[in-house]
Amino acid sequence: MFSLEDILLAKSIAVVGASNNPNKMGHTLIKNIVDGGFEGKIYPVNLKEDKILGIRAYPDISSIPENIDLVVVSVPAFAVQDIIKQAGEKGVKGAIIISGGFKEIGNHDLEKEVLKTAREYGMRIIGPNCQGVNYTANKMCATWPLVKTQGSIGVVSQSGTIGATIELWAEREDMGVSCFASLGNKSDISETDFVEYFADDPNTKVVALNIEGIQEGEAFVDTMVRTSHKKPIVVLKPGRTAKGIEAVASHTKSIAGNDKIFSAFCKKHGIVRANDITEFYDFCKIAATSRKPKGNKMLIITSSGGAGIIATDTAEKIGIDIASISHELKRKLEDILPDQCVLSNPLDLTGDATAERYEKTLKAVMDDGNFDLLLTIFGDPIPGAFEVINKFKSNSKAQIIVSYLGGGDVEEQEVKLMNRNNIPAFPTPERAVKAAKALLEFKK
Amino acid sequence: MFSLEDILLAKSIAVVGASNNPNKMGHTLIKNIVDGGFEGKIYPVNLKEDKILGIRAYPDISSIPENIDLVVVSVPAFAVQDIIKQAGEKGVKGAIIISGGFKEIGNHDLEKEVLKTAREYGMRIIGPNCQGVNYTANKMCATWPLVKTQGSIGVVSQSGTIGATIELWAEREDMGVSCFASLGNKSDISETDFVEYFADDPNTKVVALNIEGIQEGEAFVDTMVRTSHKKPIVVLKPGRTAKGIEAVASHTKSIAGNDKIFSAFCKKHGIVRANDITEFYDFCKIAATSRKPKGNKMLIITSSGGAGIIATDTAEKIGIDIASISHELKRKLEDILPDQCVLSNPLDLTGDATAERYEKTLKAVMDDGNFDLLLTIFGDPIPGAFEVINKFKSNSKAQIIVSYLGGGDVEEQEVKLMNRNNIPAFPTPERAVKAAKALLEFKK
Repeated sequence: MFSLEDILLAKSIAVVGASNNPNKMGHTLIKNIVDGGFEGKIYPVNLKEDKILGIRAYPDISSIPENIDLVVVSVPAFAVQDIIKQAGEKGVKGAIIISGGFKEIGNHDLEKEVLKTAREYGMRIIGPNCQGVNYTANKMCATWPLVKTQGSIGVVSQSGTIGATIELWAEREDMGVSCFASLGNKSDISETDFVEYFADDPNTKVVALNIEGIQEGEAFVDTMVRTSHKKPIVVLKPGRTAKGIEAVASHTKSIAGNDKIFSAFCKKHGIVRANDITEFYDFCKIAATSRKPKGNKMLIITSSGGAGIIATDTAEKIGIDIASISHELKRKLEDILPDQCVLSNPLDLTGDATAERYEKTLKAVMDDGNFDLLLTIFGDPIPGAFEVINKFKSNSKAQIIVSYLGGGDVEEQEVKLMNRNNIPAFPTPERAVKAAKALLEFKK
Repeated sequence: MFSLEDILLAKSIAVVGASNNPNKMGHTLIKNIVDGGFEGKIYPVNLKEDKILGIRAYPDISSIPENIDLVVVSVPAFAVQDIIKQAGEKGVKGAIIISGGFKEIGNHDLEKEVLKTAREYGMRIIGPNCQGVNYTANKMCATWPLVKTQGSIGVVSQSGTIGATIELWAEREDMGVSCFASLGNKSDISETDFVEYFADDPNTKVVALNIEGIQEGEAFVDTMVRTSHKKPIVVLKPGRTAKGIEAVASHTKSIAGNDKIFSAFCKKHGIVRANDITEFYDFCKIAATSRKPKGNKMLIITSSGGAGIIATDTAEKIGIDIASISHELKRKLEDILPDQCVLSNPLDLTGDATAERYEKTLKAVMDDGNFDLLLTIFGDPIPGAFEVINKFKSNSKAQIIVSYLGGGDVEEQEVKLMNRNNIPAFPTPERAVKAAKALLEFKK
């Protein structure tokens, strides 16, 4: 029985169309598999070359002397079917077809024939017309661009670009992804297969799904509902306006469906919809690092009054409560903080706040603990911010969320440390508050 | 007669409280002035040290043998008045008082006395309790963090953190700022003075204003209206909800005012309000690089169908029209583009699009020209993107806006080139479309 594992955990890959010419897709693909550190066997397939990137090449799949788990195909459309046949003969279980020139330009028949050939051999297909797959736990970057950081966001994306954007942002911030799968024409393997796989994948904590249209209604709905009980799911589904729906139809020849019904379905099952690519990333990040808080009372601690006000505005606008500070806590804070601090919520430690001042404050408020979400804003270059938060992270009843801004190089280093250690850090307070709201809405 | 020029174009600066101790603010300040490349004279003032950062130090202002244009003050609050007096005796025209401990903690009298002393000598004050000033054309980074890139966004910000965030983002993207001024308690010089200055400042193309409360209603309103006829103004004014208004009152003891009235005022005068820090930056960026289009018809060219759909959704949602493609243009595009391209709007060049394909397409659509805004989305690592856009930039009747995503290192390089050359490039299509909408709303 085929499982996506056969593709994602492949131990040997043939790259058909591999090339030494850096302008060819087949070059990028094999180079990223090599540079990504893939530890299994790599077989370049190229009719004319003996070696690709210094690795022995073969004229066709049949000539490869060993077993192959996965073929990655980047050749003109007309040649694809024969390659799938060869791969089938060799007992290959999965193929990623990067090549375009199928359904998306009206070549429905060619796409059907390729699928039929694959089915004859029990082979499963991702694509055609897709941007490939990156499964970081297997160091298998069979896609572009090259992204290596292992994280726990499982991205399955109809749009290669949107999925790649998420993995690039996650890499830049040391968050990483567990998987990036781009589905293209979805002739065979669809988002349903990936969501199903992610549901039990130990490397994946959150499912990030970008779709334009849904072809197999019932299976999709069942899988989404089942998975929502196991892991948080974030969905970016454009085609929400009349013109957007037209654009969906032009792009992948699929039907965006009724947006209100889809929204209602998501709401009912604690699946969170992102409104844009930024939210898509932010919501995945908070789901990958944080647990669902018990309630929606937020305490804001900040070194920047201005940033604190923006956080407050955002919270009030989207329905997060600003916790009140008890008299006891206020008295305690008066004892430990300098005069210029503002002892309300937002609790303003002012611009000369050091990591030590944050630490004293966090200790005091944790002992009090009348809140579910603790937004800590670092609004200056404050070294040691990560260490302070890390100390309180595990023992805190409240979920700690960070916004770090105005901190230049210090900020960049501290934010990476935080993200790497499951402390979600956002570049603006409003993005942090919106992500906190999403966290409250997940079923799991 | 004092002008802000006396501060912003200072040729000699005394830093009172300058220190060799890297934990002191007075260290950061003088280090940033030095490392920022300030070309005038720098006089550290410190009672105990002979040299600060290797520069001869003086025990007090009076001992400095030459004229001083500007003093930057970072000493405890009780010592500030005497320093202002000394500076006044020496004929200094302007002071930036970083020190806190004044109005913001209830010391109204001390703040008034310092101001009174300054007035006796005709000296003007920025602060106290502020994050200082960076005027890049004068290489004068009398603030933190260190930011050097010269650009044309003039930032005046009640919140040091929010202003610093804008200049840091602008630096990272090679946009730069002309000025970052943090006002703190605004005992003397206010946003009105800066807006007035920016209106005629040749280094400033767009005014970026972050305020919480407005103290001097009439002068502010007059200046804003006058300036709106000369340059685009972007305002970030939080305190829009009840809890946000409370937070404003706690922070700077100022009154946020009626938000609806302020919005109506902005709308009437073509002053654009940003809803959050991200919009604040994006709207400034587009205003600094672009001209106001004649209408709101947008053509979207993309290599990513998914990103094109998101752009379309956003445009439709916020009231930008999706231009229709004429039959003539469609026929022309059929001749020059490969089969898989989707010849509608969004015009999808598909994932294997090269800079050359963009160039051919841009030429064809420019000849047709039935649109006011051209959103070009690069959704893959496409080298040469900048050069193509740069070719068409000046001769285009439509304003060209770029979104570049999913491109990794190639993207980073290309985006910097674009921003540096007045081509606004945004990391997501929705941010690009929202910025385009802001551009339509400026008076100027």
